[in-house]
Amino acid sequence: MEASTALSRIGLAGLAVMGQNLALNIADKGFPISVYNRTTSKVDETIDRAHQEAALSDHMEPGDAIIDGGNEWYENTERRIKEVNEKGILYLGMGVSGGEEGARNGPSLMPGGSHQAYLNVQDILHKVAAQVEDGPCVTYIGEGGSGNFVKMVHNGIEYGDMQLISEAYDVLKNVGGLSNSELAEIFAEWNRGELESFLVEITADIFKVKDDGGDGELVDKILDKTGMKGTGKWTVQQAAELSVAAPTIAASLDCRYLSGLKEERENAAKALKEAGLKEETGSVVMTGVDKKRLIDDVRQALYASKICSYAQGMNLLRAKSNEKGWNLNMGELARIWKGGCIIRAVFLDRIKQAYVRNPNLASLVVDPDFAREMVQRQAAWRRVVGLAISAGISTPGMCASLSYFDTYRRSRLPANLVQAQRDLFGAHTYERIDRPGAFHTEWTKLARKTDAGVGAFN
Amino acid sequence: MEASTALSRIGLAGLAVMGQNLALNIADKGFPISVYNRTTSKVDETIDRAHQEAALSDHMEPGDAIIDGGNEWYENTERRIKEVNEKGILYLGMGVSGGEEGARNGPSLMPGGSHQAYLNVQDILHKVAAQVEDGPCVTYIGEGGSGNFVKMVHNGIEYGDMQLISEAYDVLKNVGGLSNSELAEIFAEWNRGELESFLVEITADIFKVKDDGGDGELVDKILDKTGMKGTGKWTVQQAAELSVAAPTIAASLDCRYLSGLKEERENAAKALKEAGLKEETGSVVMTGVDKKRLIDDVRQALYASKICSYAQGMNLLRAKSNEKGWNLNMGELARIWKGGCIIRAVFLDRIKQAYVRNPNLASLVVDPDFAREMVQRQAAWRRVVGLAISAGISTPGMCASLSYFDTYRRSRLPANLVQAQRDLFGAHTYERIDRPGAFHTEWTKLARKTDAGVGAFN
Repeated sequence: MEASTALSRIGLAGLAVMGQNLALNIADKGFPISVYNRTTSKVDETIDRAHQEAALSDHMEPGDAIIDGGNEWYENTERRIKEVNEKGILYLGMGVSGGEEGARNGPSLMPGGSHQAYLNVQDILHKVAAQVEDGPCVTYIGEGGSGNFVKMVHNGIEYGDMQLISEAYDVLKNVGGLSNSELAEIFAEWNRGELESFLVEITADIFKVKDDGGDGELVDKILDKTGMKGTGKWTVQQAAELSVAAPTIAASLDCRYLSGLKEERENAAKALKEAGLKEETGSVVMTGVDKKRLIDDVRQALYASKICSYAQGMNLLRAKSNEKGWNLNMGELARIWKGGCIIRAVFLDRIKQAYVRNPNLASLVVDPDFAREMVQRQAAWRRVVGLAISAGISTPGMCASLSYFDTYRRSRLPANLVQAQRDLFGAHTYERIDRPGAFHTEWTKLARKTDAGVGAFN
Repeated sequence: MEASTALSRIGLAGLAVMGQNLALNIADKGFPISVYNRTTSKVDETIDRAHQEAALSDHMEPGDAIIDGGNEWYENTERRIKEVNEKGILYLGMGVSGGEEGARNGPSLMPGGSHQAYLNVQDILHKVAAQVEDGPCVTYIGEGGSGNFVKMVHNGIEYGDMQLISEAYDVLKNVGGLSNSELAEIFAEWNRGELESFLVEITADIFKVKDDGGDGELVDKILDKTGMKGTGKWTVQQAAELSVAAPTIAASLDCRYLSGLKEERENAAKALKEAGLKEETGSVVMTGVDKKRLIDDVRQALYASKICSYAQGMNLLRAKSNEKGWNLNMGELARIWKGGCIIRAVFLDRIKQAYVRNPNLASLVVDPDFAREMVQRQAAWRRVVGLAISAGISTPGMCASLSYFDTYRRSRLPANLVQAQRDLFGAHTYERIDRPGAFHTEWTKLARKTDAGVGAFN
């Protein structure tokens, strides 16, 4: 780390897109900053250097803090907190969201770990973060790796949002027959209503961009293979670990995996045609679709699906908070996502309000306001998903959200049959609806008695 | 371990349901066996004892083998193989499926680890395993923890099968209005056709069993909360780890999690009613449904959904095999699942044949026979899922399978939009469909130029 000035309170290592822009943002706000880059620098190496090498350790002394702003696995942060604690050095694992532009002009910051370290830099973080009407988009998240965990789930929700938007695009384009300029207009219009958000805004912009030197819009020339980093995967794995259903987020991951199998998909399209598939359904516009109604239905389906996706993410955060004793403040998390980050949206203020009304809310789905909105939108939502299914368009995210809604809101599920099966083949026992206890039945024996015409219990 | 006879070739520790029955099975086949039980015995403890305690280590010497027949995490097996190797002791991690009855009369066995250990007990395993027309339901799976991994995925597939059957039950009961005796008849009939399998057979039996001392059938008195052990969770986590889409298996897990939230579901049903939900859709039989056609449609939907679920499981196995160099023989795995285990079905012979035809098959979905079957069933499949969606019945597994099918078979997905979004906010770059290379575009700038009425590239 170059000691460019003895007065620097912040040294920033790692000058890729996010680091560069964050450094400029911090300097802009009047805080002297020293920067450092090493092409292959990794956080563990950086910490080693903090202890062992002349350049960094000259500047690190007890009470100094390391802030890791990367998308780090939360357990790595917890290990590092312990390691540096032995040297008296403080540590923050801080989620940073906002992409290039957010880092430059004000990201959403999710610092977790040493509370003292947070207090030491709070003034800087408050100024560097995005500003919304109820404060800067930063709060002390909690102990340990909570900052990284919250950022991880933020990214999982972001995956879900992007997937749902791409499905809306797919249905509007391939069922409704909308052109790119119509799509640009529709998304811009949606961005003036309940869907107002960074991702909907940029989607409108994307449809406007012409292909350089080619015909039409650039979006049509982009290969349909989606990259990914690790946070979405971790979100899905943690949901499974904590027994939390997160099907919309999982569907968005699956679609990224399947998008990567471009050649396999092309072969599958061919193989199924050879097997008798009349046409590649989904590639043709359906006739007899009321375009205006479809657009309105898709908007409602997107919004309702989004509520379910956020419900999954928030419930995953609460489950982890309970496990780790982080005491996460759900409303405050929604608040710091209102600005700066990729999922920023007016919608997040509504989530904040829901948790302010009831900090122990079991699910966003049962908050009275969201519940009413979902009930109002469910007919449109079912129409869109049903239409997509009959058209052969896959809307895995919207389907997953709707299945989630329909499962969560049913007081009686067919799980009784699964439990009977488990008891039959594995003697796993079952509970009854009418009296307490664990029961086991000799199902096969009794079924055969019935077969033989003998009343089982007479 | 009691040295009940000096001639025992097998010592079996752990005498719960599976252990007891397996021990009886082995003894039946004429192999002397010593058994041991300790209420809280765990495998690591057992191995420690193999080295440290008088009773076991008296009987363990170089060349002896330990066989762990539990549902073990494959990495634990790999660690233990190394540990006992140092003592010259061989180790097999062996998946055992079949429940109580299979263990007693012939399970499906999935031994992985030391090939020498396998050869030493091959004669016993061949006799103990279930027998099908093309041999005993056992084969040497591969090195390391491959036997446990294969069993784990078997269980994931089993979760999927059980979920899909419960959804068929749900639709037939709550949309079609079928009684338990009708359901028993339908499942028995299905068990004489393409769906012939242990799980469909026992489902028919379950509907026949009367409630002891009560009215009607026992299945209606069972609480709709489903238990689970760890293998389904691991399957979903490994799918994410390996970038393999396994949405049907994941949906079955999610439904188990959501089934557990009985009280929350009851509250949600209430909250949504208060929010204006007219009725708890899904609890009433729809009028105007052609029962006979519905039954036939559901059969086809179940079968097509099942193919997708198995395609996911098999592709997960292949991905892991590639990662670990296990060289798994996909056709042989399908063969040893034809008998003994919970997912046993005539259907598995078809899967075996598909891999015999083409060992490098990218997916069961593109095997010519399965492809033809899916094409033939897709209309019925879409009708069932569409009907369930409009009725408010959740069929998350069937939806997930259909989404999977519709995503995998499309040569062009809306992932181009996701990639454009990622490039816009994170400078992640994108590929093009018409020329090689990685591209980055200043989307926002260009969109604003368009807004200003200026051609972006003129």
